[in-house]
Amino acid sequence: MAAKDWQKLCAERKEQQLQSIPKEWLIQTPPESQGNVLDVPETCGLLTDRELEITNTVDVDALLGKLALGEWSSVEVTTAFYKRAIIAQQVTNCLTEIFVEQALARARVVDEHLKQTGKTIGPLHGLPISLKDQFSMKGKDTIMGYAGWIGKPAEQDCVLVEMLYDLGAVPFVRTNVPQTLMWGETYNHVFGRTTNPYNRYMTPGGSSGGEGALVAMRGSPLGVGTDIGGSVRIPSVFCGLYGLRPSYERLPYQGAMNSQLGQESISSVLGPMTVTPAGVRRFTRAIIDAKPWNRDPLAVRKPWNQREYELEEHGHGIGMCFAIMWDNDVVKPHPPLIRAMEITKAALEAAGHKVIDWIPHRHLEIYQNTERIFGADGGHDFRADCELSGEPLIQTMSPTEDAHEYALDQPLAKVLLGEPEHISAFKLWQLHKEKRDLRKSHLDYWEATKAVTGTGRPVDAIINPAVASIACPHGTNSDAFYTTMCNSLDLTTYAFPVTFADKELDVKPPPHQFRNHEDEAIYHLYDAEIFHGLPVGLQLIGRTLEEEGVIAMTELVDRALKAHKVA
Amino acid sequence: MAAKDWQKLCAERKEQQLQSIPKEWLIQTPPESQGNVLDVPETCGLLTDRELEITNTVDVDALLGKLALGEWSSVEVTTAFYKRAIIAQQVTNCLTEIFVEQALARARVVDEHLKQTGKTIGPLHGLPISLKDQFSMKGKDTIMGYAGWIGKPAEQDCVLVEMLYDLGAVPFVRTNVPQTLMWGETYNHVFGRTTNPYNRYMTPGGSSGGEGALVAMRGSPLGVGTDIGGSVRIPSVFCGLYGLRPSYERLPYQGAMNSQLGQESISSVLGPMTVTPAGVRRFTRAIIDAKPWNRDPLAVRKPWNQREYELEEHGHGIGMCFAIMWDNDVVKPHPPLIRAMEITKAALEAAGHKVIDWIPHRHLEIYQNTERIFGADGGHDFRADCELSGEPLIQTMSPTEDAHEYALDQPLAKVLLGEPEHISAFKLWQLHKEKRDLRKSHLDYWEATKAVTGTGRPVDAIINPAVASIACPHGTNSDAFYTTMCNSLDLTTYAFPVTFADKELDVKPPPHQFRNHEDEAIYHLYDAEIFHGLPVGLQLIGRTLEEEGVIAMTELVDRALKAHKVA
Repeated sequence: MAAKDWQKLCAERKEQQLQSIPKEWLIQTPPESQGNVLDVPETCGLLTDRELEITNTVDVDALLGKLALGEWSSVEVTTAFYKRAIIAQQVTNCLTEIFVEQALARARVVDEHLKQTGKTIGPLHGLPISLKDQFSMKGKDTIMGYAGWIGKPAEQDCVLVEMLYDLGAVPFVRTNVPQTLMWGETYNHVFGRTTNPYNRYMTPGGSSGGEGALVAMRGSPLGVGTDIGGSVRIPSVFCGLYGLRPSYERLPYQGAMNSQLGQESISSVLGPMTVTPAGVRRFTRAIIDAKPWNRDPLAVRKPWNQREYELEEHGHGIGMCFAIMWDNDVVKPHPPLIRAMEITKAALEAAGHKVIDWIPHRHLEIYQNTERIFGADGGHDFRADCELSGEPLIQTMSPTEDAHEYALDQPLAKVLLGEPEHISAFKLWQLHKEKRDLRKSHLDYWEATKAVTGTGRPVDAIINPAVASIACPHGTNSDAFYTTMCNSLDLTTYAFPVTFADKELDVKPPPHQFRNHEDEAIYHLYDAEIFHGLPVGLQLIGRTLEEEGVIAMTELVDRALKAHKVA
Repeated sequence: MAAKDWQKLCAERKEQQLQSIPKEWLIQTPPESQGNVLDVPETCGLLTDRELEITNTVDVDALLGKLALGEWSSVEVTTAFYKRAIIAQQVTNCLTEIFVEQALARARVVDEHLKQTGKTIGPLHGLPISLKDQFSMKGKDTIMGYAGWIGKPAEQDCVLVEMLYDLGAVPFVRTNVPQTLMWGETYNHVFGRTTNPYNRYMTPGGSSGGEGALVAMRGSPLGVGTDIGGSVRIPSVFCGLYGLRPSYERLPYQGAMNSQLGQESISSVLGPMTVTPAGVRRFTRAIIDAKPWNRDPLAVRKPWNQREYELEEHGHGIGMCFAIMWDNDVVKPHPPLIRAMEITKAALEAAGHKVIDWIPHRHLEIYQNTERIFGADGGHDFRADCELSGEPLIQTMSPTEDAHEYALDQPLAKVLLGEPEHISAFKLWQLHKEKRDLRKSHLDYWEATKAVTGTGRPVDAIINPAVASIACPHGTNSDAFYTTMCNSLDLTTYAFPVTFADKELDVKPPPHQFRNHEDEAIYHLYDAEIFHGLPVGLQLIGRTLEEEGVIAMTELVDRALKAHKVA
């Protein structure tokens, strides 16, 4: 393709996206200078009172209850969320594929089924679900942030989409990602930049940033993202959501598009993102109960384990011992995150649990090993996908190169590791050996905490920040130190919201002794005024393939937090 | 190391092995010309009547019952099996590490525990267990067929050994392997060649060939092998045993030595080998119940699923539909194997099950993809381990290069694929993509059999040969076509004995149209006279991580076979 043609291609595709929006759903958008746009759905006048009631029903179980009883039809629920998603699109640019007619046609089928049989199709009956721009749907492009992927419709649905249909859901929109997927922000040449609805000067995180912005706007009751280095959890904590990173292959990835397809050393996983924990549990359990291993050969044949959900191995949820990792010794978290951990500790103690400190174990080594694996092809995969159209490989998420004093989007990896090196299969095997040793070391370390918990068990779960910062200005989120560990060690991890940044409470501390370039840069990034009012979330880390237990423990922490706020 | 020094090193180590045998356990060995040595333990006079009674107790549950009641002490059981193992060693050369005193000391501890507490240590209380020469034990070498690995004692037990101790077992001997582990026979420069006790002119298979010969001699009630391309199943069928190939990481491999350590595309797995099915179930369940995921970070957190073992998803074991794959369209099985499949079909039909034909699906493609992955380092790992001592990389398992008209140990891979190529990490990822597509294709193909089974389910299990030949002359076993598929697709597979070759019944058919070099060579290899009397086994293939169901289904087939023979 001739140089510059890719820009034309992108512009045409973006125009086509605009055309796919029903004209009557276009609103008067607020001025660009307006940071917080969360109230636009309430104020713009597009949604009826009933549509506002529907879309403000943030509990997925409640929504599904109304749908199952036919109190609300799937057509009206889907219409309501679609309109709100289109509002979200106009203020945060969170969508990619828009297909109103197809979604409503599906919703009519669902409604008809209930009317004819008196029964729901399945446990997700009638629920509109948004999908990150990797989950292929028959006949639609899966552009995934590459100009070169425009105009290549999928021949079939990916397994997740097949299963969602079988479970009664209504996949209704797809959401934006960064080029390559390997950024904790959301920008590409085709669909542009997604912004954070809490403050559009800020990134919603990434790579599932479209989902983060959309779900935060209540433009979708449940979104599905993916996570290979934090891509579900970063947008979840940046946008005030609940988001689960399951273990490798617990949920079916088969048929979804991806970067570095075939890289199986540290696998990307898919996970739900919602406004309340009910949706995370409902989605995860529904998919597992439908036996994904009969459709995805890599999916783990482990039925939902109710005894694990009842925390049989964690003292039945009574008198547990949590550990808080205040700092991973690589980059120091910002003040609002420290306060969120203090709140969580107090809430758990008030609920009768013990909370001890987690001393970090080999974080930098784990991070380095992970980054070397991700870079094992020397960027060949990314460049090849760019070459399809001639678009350049994006080197920064910064809207203006000189926007910030500290080049925070220069990953620490480049300082510590140099440029990624295209290595041999044999060298990759050596990295696997190293990774396996690190996993064993961390597991033994965790098991050894049995000596200090007082419960007779090792620490039940670790709680820490998912990112050292909260949602930050575009181009400044380069930290994946806290998230990556869970991908490398394949630990089930659940991001959850705790509070909001408060300029009175979260004052900037004096400089500490910086451990590295990024620790220093992250310190300087913090400004109590700029970050005021943004969501602050943490992550709860459990064991590999312990989805049931991690969901239950995070729900327990969430209840403790809510009880503590009331008290 | 200077040239030739490796030979001296090997000779010294072999002499040291001989010295580790108590002098009084040395027997008058039969002449080399005697093929079948199975009766030597009964006739050589070393074993007392009680020791013969103990070692002829082939049912592991029965043995464990006596041990738990203290009817037989662990010391006497271990002594009996050790003596018989040493007999097996003298006639088949099946052992590597011999450590009588240490094993007996352990047995004394076990006995003392029962005496003091009245309780067993665990579900494998007092049972001597033999281990393939990969399962490291603190203070002992893990030579694994490499001269260069002599004199490098392990710093700690591997996780399997740790767990066996916790379960009450007595690891008592380690067993021989081929150099590199990547052969279906058993020969290396340090410990030499292991022979098949049914006919020492024949190979016991490999790479867990030491286990095959030892367990067939009743020199161990239960052996643990490993399988990356058939290495549990080949010796199991060649030696008339039951042998399970579980799915990746169901049982804990952590800390065991291996070839190509770090190759995680197609993982080696460990599995039990025994004379009756009870041992396979007992071992597998005991390990899983002990939660290996708390010690091995890669072990799958899937508790033993009793409902799967009760065949809840397979019609509770009533009126099932099995499929027999008579031929994989790559290499045609020998006549005794065809007859074994006919026997199995008749037995299953007599037991009320349906048996249909399995039409092979993309076997050659799967094989080629697998071999390319195994060769992705261009043999670098093997050569590096040879270079440690200067020993040459073994190129053939043939004792004399011109022993056979057809060069059966020239793997078909070399004809079809050329020499292995040292590829890049990126190219390896492309092989993973291909592999994933093949797995998906095979899964969908299997699921689609729902249309023809008449049970409302897909085919419950596939039954086919593990190898196209039965135990064959040394240097002629090059076939891994039937086994490799299960490693590549990660299908749980269980090898089981059916009958013995019979020169009257298993006559050589006229030549068929040969598909390739190996198909032709395997055809010519068959001689009804030579193979007469050797064990004939098959394998039952189930789904990924379906150990419970595959164990139950194979037990069901085994019962049907026994009932059929009686009838």
